[in-house]
Amino acid sequence: MKALVYGGPRRVSIDDIPDPRIERPTDALVRITSTNICGSDLHMFEGRTTVEKGKVLGHENLGEVIERGDAVVRVKVGDRVCLPFNIACGFCRNCEKGQTGFCLTTNPGSAGAAYGYAEMGPYAGGQAEYLRVPFADFNCLRLPDDAVEKEDDYVMLADIFPTGWHATRLADLQPGESIVVYGSGPVGLMAAYSAMIQGAKLVMVVDRHPDRLRLAESIGAVAIDDSKVDPVERVLELTRGLGADKGCECVGWQAHDPGGMEHPNMTMNRLVASVRATGAIGNVGVFVPEDPKSPDALMKEGRLAFDYGRFFAKGLRVGSGQANVKRYNRELRDLIHLGRAKPSFIVSHRLPLSDAPEAYEHFDARDDGWTKVILKVAA
Amino acid sequence: MKALVYGGPRRVSIDDIPDPRIERPTDALVRITSTNICGSDLHMFEGRTTVEKGKVLGHENLGEVIERGDAVVRVKVGDRVCLPFNIACGFCRNCEKGQTGFCLTTNPGSAGAAYGYAEMGPYAGGQAEYLRVPFADFNCLRLPDDAVEKEDDYVMLADIFPTGWHATRLADLQPGESIVVYGSGPVGLMAAYSAMIQGAKLVMVVDRHPDRLRLAESIGAVAIDDSKVDPVERVLELTRGLGADKGCECVGWQAHDPGGMEHPNMTMNRLVASVRATGAIGNVGVFVPEDPKSPDALMKEGRLAFDYGRFFAKGLRVGSGQANVKRYNRELRDLIHLGRAKPSFIVSHRLPLSDAPEAYEHFDARDDGWTKVILKVAA
Amino acid sequence: MKALVYGGPRRVSIDDIPDPRIERPTDALVRITSTNICGSDLHMFEGRTTVEKGKVLGHENLGEVIERGDAVVRVKVGDRVCLPFNIACGFCRNCEKGQTGFCLTTNPGSAGAAYGYAEMGPYAGGQAEYLRVPFADFNCLRLPDDAVEKEDDYVMLADIFPTGWHATRLADLQPGESIVVYGSGPVGLMAAYSAMIQGAKLVMVVDRHPDRLRLAESIGAVAIDDSKVDPVERVLELTRGLGADKGCECVGWQAHDPGGMEHPNMTMNRLVASVRATGAIGNVGVFVPEDPKSPDALMKEGRLAFDYGRFFAKGLRVGSGQANVKRYNRELRDLIHLGRAKPSFIVSHRLPLSDAPEAYEHFDARDDGWTKVILKVAA
Amino acid sequence: MKALVYGGPRRVSIDDIPDPRIERPTDALVRITSTNICGSDLHMFEGRTTVEKGKVLGHENLGEVIERGDAVVRVKVGDRVCLPFNIACGFCRNCEKGQTGFCLTTNPGSAGAAYGYAEMGPYAGGQAEYLRVPFADFNCLRLPDDAVEKEDDYVMLADIFPTGWHATRLADLQPGESIVVYGSGPVGLMAAYSAMIQGAKLVMVVDRHPDRLRLAESIGAVAIDDSKVDPVERVLELTRGLGADKGCECVGWQAHDPGGMEHPNMTMNRLVASVRATGAIGNVGVFVPEDPKSPDALMKEGRLAFDYGRFFAKGLRVGSGQANVKRYNRELRDLIHLGRAKPSFIVSHRLPLSDAPEAYEHFDARDDGWTKVILKVAA
Repeated sequence: MKALVYGGPRRVSIDDIPDPRIERPTDALVRITSTNICGSDLHMFEGRTTVEKGKVLGHENLGEVIERGDAVVRVKVGDRVCLPFNIACGFCRNCEKGQTGFCLTTNPGSAGAAYGYAEMGPYAGGQAEYLRVPFADFNCLRLPDDAVEKEDDYVMLADIFPTGWHATRLADLQPGESIVVYGSGPVGLMAAYSAMIQGAKLVMVVDRHPDRLRLAESIGAVAIDDSKVDPVERVLELTRGLGADKGCECVGWQAHDPGGMEHPNMTMNRLVASVRATGAIGNVGVFVPEDPKSPDALMKEGRLAFDYGRFFAKGLRVGSGQANVKRYNRELRDLIHLGRAKPSFIVSHRLPLSDAPEAYEHFDARDDGWTKVILKVAA
Repeated sequence: MKALVYGGPRRVSIDDIPDPRIERPTDALVRITSTNICGSDLHMFEGRTTVEKGKVLGHENLGEVIERGDAVVRVKVGDRVCLPFNIACGFCRNCEKGQTGFCLTTNPGSAGAAYGYAEMGPYAGGQAEYLRVPFADFNCLRLPDDAVEKEDDYVMLADIFPTGWHATRLADLQPGESIVVYGSGPVGLMAAYSAMIQGAKLVMVVDRHPDRLRLAESIGAVAIDDSKVDPVERVLELTRGLGADKGCECVGWQAHDPGGMEHPNMTMNRLVASVRATGAIGNVGVFVPEDPKSPDALMKEGRLAFDYGRFFAKGLRVGSGQANVKRYNRELRDLIHLGRAKPSFIVSHRLPLSDAPEAYEHFDARDDGWTKVILKVAA
Repeated sequence: MKALVYGGPRRVSIDDIPDPRIERPTDALVRITSTNICGSDLHMFEGRTTVEKGKVLGHENLGEVIERGDAVVRVKVGDRVCLPFNIACGFCRNCEKGQTGFCLTTNPGSAGAAYGYAEMGPYAGGQAEYLRVPFADFNCLRLPDDAVEKEDDYVMLADIFPTGWHATRLADLQPGESIVVYGSGPVGLMAAYSAMIQGAKLVMVVDRHPDRLRLAESIGAVAIDDSKVDPVERVLELTRGLGADKGCECVGWQAHDPGGMEHPNMTMNRLVASVRATGAIGNVGVFVPEDPKSPDALMKEGRLAFDYGRFFAKGLRVGSGQANVKRYNRELRDLIHLGRAKPSFIVSHRLPLSDAPEAYEHFDARDDGWTKVILKVAA
Repeated sequence: MKALVYGGPRRVSIDDIPDPRIERPTDALVRITSTNICGSDLHMFEGRTTVEKGKVLGHENLGEVIERGDAVVRVKVGDRVCLPFNIACGFCRNCEKGQTGFCLTTNPGSAGAAYGYAEMGPYAGGQAEYLRVPFADFNCLRLPDDAVEKEDDYVMLADIFPTGWHATRLADLQPGESIVVYGSGPVGLMAAYSAMIQGAKLVMVVDRHPDRLRLAESIGAVAIDDSKVDPVERVLELTRGLGADKGCECVGWQAHDPGGMEHPNMTMNRLVASVRATGAIGNVGVFVPEDPKSPDALMKEGRLAFDYGRFFAKGLRVGSGQANVKRYNRELRDLIHLGRAKPSFIVSHRLPLSDAPEAYEHFDARDDGWTKVILKVAA
């Protein structure tokens, strides 16, 4: 089959590789129809992770079940399904608690597995024609009869819509509260959109890319351009000097100033300054335990110069980590199905799989207008 | 009246000062019978804060109501009451949410007030014969008919018992979970004791003072001496390599190694390493927004070199800040009253007010056996 | 002053009575500008309660502070304020837990006080020119600079908007869930509206008055006319046979069939049948401990023939009781202020106080179009 | 194999029946070593349910895995395991939310399955030599190296310890609160024991069997004999007239007075009277949707004459339903393993399987001293 393969820093290509097959009775095989390029794919693309050459990338996958193992009972051939990016067993302690992003079974020795991702187990990604799905009854989200019609919405359930939603849950957002989201990439936009759906009174989004800020405004958020104003001051102005009730970090360790210089602690410390005493921060932007290539000395060993004294004085909380997609994907699917959510508003490009290498280049360059790419592998 | 007055770094004395009086109709006057020296008093004693000379210290206060303002209706003259260290109004947004440690009324321009404390408003402390209590109906915890008999237990309700309890709540401890507490001073011991009461399956306490570790063992905790073993390795051994479910930071920014060298990030980073993926940390040990006298360059401006990359990879949460005493003090009072809790097990010294200056010296030196001092001002 | 006075079953009149005055240092006096007639006023109007003759009715009050006692510090003369219908002290155990609807201070011997209400203490109502507000710093919700412009929205904060919201919180509604609301009077409409704001995926409203059902549809809910279809069957149809995730009871003990016959257990049992296994029900429609005038034998002594066996088999939960208005009114005020909520969509009539007796007649008769009446006492 | 088989009202016998076998790749076979008789087995024994003749009873099972299907990966032959009484798939919506007692897969058309139980699917019970366990990786709780030594404790994890615990969670018990438990059978005792472990300040247990009341006292609870005193009055006395903070119903629909007359609404209405305003009730005693043999007219169709008016006036909540055992069994297992819980204190009899029919007779008669029977099928 055709698949997008990692070949080293800034090198991805469409290669012919063997088709996946059923390996265990709990597996299913899925023919991919839509698969997205994710901002976190760029960390691998840029060579900032340990991902091995030859890995098929792609963890935002949707398609049709074409075969299932003998033990699979719920999912049926022909079902249209969206696959959470986390691969989870369903019966370990963490899965049972709903912490499917930290499964203890699927990536032994660590906690948490994913398709096509550095350090997340030996699983191929879905930027390909076919995908093997372990523990299929647990990992497949079945889609309703408008699966094809709303495919561009449903594919967001694999990662970014639940991840943005998770940011708001980690921040413990309550209806009627204000929230500031740092980062207006796809995940930040989904966090802002989630906050609107949940009844936030005021959603502020900080970024500097005009196309992304416009999208934030299109859903009712207040856009703050941090290349033009001090975002902390702006948040304080908008909140009578008290700060936002809650905040989300949707940028991660490669945060940088408008000049391109990386400051890994920049967004977290701005959040500490932006959020009111007794508030909370949800962090889904990725931070890594080490990054030898980081220009920041502390970050080489995974550390931040964190404004912790102020954090404590304000009695703040922070929750972090990748989303447990299954905790949210049923409800978000239903919001889409019933017309209450339409996350595809962020999609800028729908391209064939063959265009994926070029799309990686544009998306990595944050070229204007390249907000979100869906690879349309098949119909 | 007599009161303990701060006179500059390492200088406290018993001075004669004017008696407090009713200033507002919502005030009460309390004749102090018991008042403790707190570990956080030592930060002021050592000159590591901005507290002004002439301040009466003491925020762990218990006594008898001797006068009340015209608007006070619940508390009556003659009531024995314990006073939460936080001074709160009861009607601001934070108080209404139970965040009485961050009252927006009693220390305008900041969030949170306290008796006799740096940066916490113009309130005199209770290491004195009398104390003015603002918003008395809200701030007085009335004690039952065994108030005198169990005074050494009830006085712990002013701060350290609720503060230790708060550490476990910030860590979201659930019955049947394991927890590691860094710091076995009075607050750490109260955190460990709180965890036992709440049904923790395993409580581990890390410290290096033999008297304190013995007290931890006396309540059923496992003591870990970090001057003899690597505490992170020991916690992992005791938890089948997974780490503790939850953790508490009860040390604060002056954490130091056995040689006395301060490492402000030591306990937080050990907690990140000690707690299992998906776990949570409660932090009540004090961190300050700046400490120009810190030997640590980052800490001078209130920053920690925080292992945030690992924190994120494990999907951890941390909650911080001073305890909202009123959120817990009724229930803890009742546990004492009904014989289900006896926090006075930590008391090492009961001394007259006149001995307070000497007691500060011993307590600050962590002299063996000086675990907790109650000043017995009156009967 | 002029006030609406209860004179016995179906008798209310505008009488001249003495002005209220400051009685305690914590009181404030408010000049009423807007005050609503509430559905629960009708229970008293119909003579189905123990309310005494001579009582001034009215517990949905908004106005301007014209005087304050010596102990009041936050609220100032000239402030525009909305008054929660519950009168609470702020310092008893229930108030501290946010259960201000069950204050132990303001109505001794019971739990909970209110303005102008049967069994809720000796407090005059606000369908009058002036109102005394006890514990004013705790009980006044201050309004922002658009207080006059949006007065018709803000006055809903006294009772029905928080009460409708409370119904959804008692039902533990989560974003993305479905909910069925029985009763489309003002409180039921506010429950439905609250559910929409909180991100429900599907809101169903059951009633039989066309004007009310139209209002439900106007906010995006699905209207179910129980005079035409079996509402339980319709809910099951709309939820693939599973039932709604959550339900709200907004009718109360005087529930009746289209023929007018009272069946006190009708809505609760329909909810048990309409809600899916593991679901929850929030009940804010009023049930009373006894009603000697009820045509239902069990209800005379406050009992329902409740389908409890089915309730248990489905593992259901129910939460009940009057709303703790202060738990929600700040956030709801801010949603109005920032344009995210506009509860005045239910208002059908704005009338002078002098028209109140006639308005009671129309509202009690459920005359078509009489959805919600605001009495405009002053500007 | 030998198994206890239901043969009609008050008829159970040890019969020879075919051995179970692996039917699906996700199954495991367990050789039973310990299996309890449960109070809910008596409902079937007495002929008050629809259970069919020929059914093998027994849903409190523990044993050793002797065979597993091809898809089972976690559980291994030789593992000692305790089986939750609920049979759950692990991947339906309810299982994913932790509601394993209401699995939508294992008992199609209903919600929830169990071993050897009326209306809970076609599954044989474990009062037998062998048991087939569906979805074995999800349903087996593996036991540590003291599995044999503490088998009498671990077998309580199949049902009554988690069920008692569930009662306290449905009641939302918080540390430091008081709670009253109606019913001092095995489940009621486990509820009281759970409350003690969780840090309740005061646990009251109502029953009339002296042996059971003595067991309640042995764990620190206050025993109330409702054949000698009015239990509601006694609870009010013990709680300064306010009522208990929380309550548990551990009796069910066959509640009866000391004379043996059934009053299905007796315990629920006593709880409404015993629990303070704003309190909550957890109900795990079984109520059924219909019982044609009930002497109570309403109960024939599953209804209670419920004091709902008082329930509402007090703002109470009630949660109900069978326990989701998996939500608690890991933590409770660990409490046993680490010596923090020892639920076997209730065991009165350890008997061979052949004595089971006689044991049913004694247990059903509530013969003095027959508190809890473990059938020791094998070593």
